[in-house]
Amino acid sequence: MRQLLLISSSRVHGTGYLDHCAEQVQDLLSGLHRVLFIPWALADHDAYAETARARFEAMGLGLDSIHRASSPAAAVEAAEAVFIGGGNTFRLLKTLWESGVVEPLRRKADAGMPYMGTSAGSNVACATIKTTNDMPIIYPPTFEALALVPFNINPHYLDPDPSSKHKGETRETRIREFHELNETPVVGLREGSMLRIEGGSVELRGGVGARLFRRGEEAEEFSSGADLSFLVG
Amino acid sequence: MRQLLLISSSRVHGTGYLDHCAEQVQDLLSGLHRVLFIPWALADHDAYAETARARFEAMGLGLDSIHRASSPAAAVEAAEAVFIGGGNTFRLLKTLWESGVVEPLRRKADAGMPYMGTSAGSNVACATIKTTNDMPIIYPPTFEALALVPFNINPHYLDPDPSSKHKGETRETRIREFHELNETPVVGLREGSMLRIEGGSVELRGGVGARLFRRGEEAEEFSSGADLSFLVG
Repeated sequence: MRQLLLISSSRVHGTGYLDHCAEQVQDLLSGLHRVLFIPWALADHDAYAETARARFEAMGLGLDSIHRASSPAAAVEAAEAVFIGGGNTFRLLKTLWESGVVEPLRRKADAGMPYMGTSAGSNVACATIKTTNDMPIIYPPTFEALALVPFNINPHYLDPDPSSKHKGETRETRIREFHELNETPVVGLREGSMLRIEGGSVELRGGVGARLFRRGEEAEEFSSGADLSFLVG
Repeated sequence: MRQLLLISSSRVHGTGYLDHCAEQVQDLLSGLHRVLFIPWALADHDAYAETARARFEAMGLGLDSIHRASSPAAAVEAAEAVFIGGGNTFRLLKTLWESGVVEPLRRKADAGMPYMGTSAGSNVACATIKTTNDMPIIYPPTFEALALVPFNINPHYLDPDPSSKHKGETRETRIREFHELNETPVVGLREGSMLRIEGGSVELRGGVGARLFRRGEEAEEFSSGADLSFLVG
């Protein structure tokens, strides 16, 4: 039974790294001892792993970083749980494909290994990275991602600002353009929100709500606690 | 001698389509009669071409849209001038490559055919689209673009907002991440600004200034009228 926690952002305004989701993380990983961290979305793997290690140790959990493993695929095979951190989604996805961990990550997550992601780490758990907000700083071999769920997430979702003078596309316009070319539903997760997936159950958590975008339909607002299991049905 | 006008955005707050750059457009196209429009960044080519046609007719210029041409490459070969409009950069780039116009666009622009672009149309004139702000809604065959200039543009450039509570990356952070993996200089063009390129001369125009980002260097601010010819030297 799949056990996933897909978090919009690792930080929200006014609190520290993973503070706003610590309770959900501890619930996901309860009874486990160590998590395998994937720092590939940022350039400085050592520094990123240290940040994550300190935070997980504060929750009573050990952390190993995949960039120190001689075989990334073997590290995934041996992992109790995996956490993919945020950063640049293109850089992350390219490294996931080139290091040979996509297939073992899919297989282990399908078999019930807990998986958590923040921001880019939530994007890559989805069908594709086509709804990332990131700059395409490097060309990946495909936009197809881990597909642990059959929908997409737009992390750091921002509601349109009616007072804005900026003429760049709003987030909603960008997602509508995605749906001109794609069928996949998109969950716009505001900072502070997250999805907890247990097998066929999908629950919205985190208090700030989310918007669901489906091709040819009006966007729908959902509150924390909403049952979104229909997305995996 | 190359004749390019690379505009950040087709609109700025408070004025209509291409109003803020009309004088520069008329200067670029002076003495010409018709422009070839490329509407591929948006889904509705007919509607987009009508918007552009009305605006160019108001400037005394005729407009043909490439989506009505039986051979896009032949339309480019026959064009007096080309205008690529904004929208989604990934969709635009994919269509440019797949329709066979990249090579004729490069050759004609090198031979002096005036080229103008707004937003995505400015991104694709550059070395790569790796500094677009757009969502990657479709997978292009490469991120390499027309390379009419050896640098990149970030259109709709936004200065960091010190009062923001949002935890997504600022534009400057995104461009810094680009420079972790790439050498190409990036001109952050605020809405209202544009670059006029004549052969080896690059001038910043439009009154709102721009920021230049180079790998390993502090960002530099330039005012309207600045000579940026060193970017093509």
